[in-house]
Amino acid sequence: MTTLYGYFRSSAAYRVRIALNLKGLAYDQAPVNLVKGEQRGDDFLDRNPQGLVPVLETDDGQRLTQSLAICEYLEERHPDPALLPADAAGRARVRALAQLVASEIHPLNNLRVLKYLVHELEVDDTAKRAWYHHWIHEGFAALEARLTREAGTGEFCHGDTPSLADICLVPQVFNAERFDCDLSAYPTIRRIVASCRALPAFQQAAPEAQPDTT
Amino acid sequence: MTTLYGYFRSSAAYRVRIALNLKGLAYDQAPVNLVKGEQRGDDFLDRNPQGLVPVLETDDGQRLTQSLAICEYLEERHPDPALLPADAAGRARVRALAQLVASEIHPLNNLRVLKYLVHELEVDDTAKRAWYHHWIHEGFAALEARLTREAGTGEFCHGDTPSLADICLVPQVFNAERFDCDLSAYPTIRRIVASCRALPAFQQAAPEAQPDTT
Repeated sequence: MTTLYGYFRSSAAYRVRIALNLKGLAYDQAPVNLVKGEQRGDDFLDRNPQGLVPVLETDDGQRLTQSLAICEYLEERHPDPALLPADAAGRARVRALAQLVASEIHPLNNLRVLKYLVHELEVDDTAKRAWYHHWIHEGFAALEARLTREAGTGEFCHGDTPSLADICLVPQVFNAERFDCDLSAYPTIRRIVASCRALPAFQQAAPEAQPDTT
Repeated sequence: MTTLYGYFRSSAAYRVRIALNLKGLAYDQAPVNLVKGEQRGDDFLDRNPQGLVPVLETDDGQRLTQSLAICEYLEERHPDPALLPADAAGRARVRALAQLVASEIHPLNNLRVLKYLVHELEVDDTAKRAWYHHWIHEGFAALEARLTREAGTGEFCHGDTPSLADICLVPQVFNAERFDCDLSAYPTIRRIVASCRALPAFQQAAPEAQPDTT
């Protein structure tokens, strides 16, 4: 059986849940409570020395890390339905939109970074919020500009079926909403996220619908 | 002609230079001086609204962004020599090692983030260095653990030919050395980087060998 080590509010685990659901793959969940620090326990560090979720253990014994690498693996092993377009240029666009979220926005705003700001740099709550909002707005403004003007955009980030780009976007918007970011300047992002949220694969992957949801 | 918009010291542009060189592809360079803020000029923002290098304009008119998406595109269009192994599990491992650097280390330590620390959070030089070193050591410790204990590691991060993982690792080590990080705790990383630096493709991509090197 395929097992996903994750956490209901982890954006990276959320991405993998969406990908698994879109592909119709069954999986068990093994929650790792990041707030309680379970990711730093020996059991979990043995699975992933970086102490980060998600980790996907596949039914043939692979132990996979890093959400985008896991999604690419799922795409190669279970190509239908596709998370990447058929043409190389389209694939490059989808991967670039996904990376924009996964490499430019998310890493700056995850739990370990916010903790460092508070505990090591001793920034107050106002400055922490400003930091969070700054990177959301910088990234979403760029993403909105691309989605609005590029012909590849359809009902979803690329065309009319969900792709790896949407898999990254929806958890990031969930995260931004949790931090009360005003997303009114991003109508295309909001329209696409609404399309995604209408799909069961996204609904069933949402943080509020997981076994470890609190 | 293929044109790379980059900057000699940008880790992300450095990755693309290595990939192009490993594949033996000719390209022009169009330097974008990040210190002078040329990435925020209208000319460049039209190419990439996010104002980040690299951008690769291909000879068939594609305009590609995000270094890892560009490398994947080059891999698909010019498969030989390969930057990813042939097996899905190996490909997942290489992509995960690449993402570990590109999503967990690099985004926290690039120029725009260090500028925010100094200008918005008003941290002093000591705290800025501590921030930089913290994320390097957290990431490199995890990477070293994986490279040391996983059977996939060879002369390079995966096997005995350079891959996408090495393409990410070498610029990150260059960057860490620039900030005087002590890398003595990472003998496997240092051994692999030495192997890479012996290859002309890596030498010719190095920041000290670019047309805009200052």
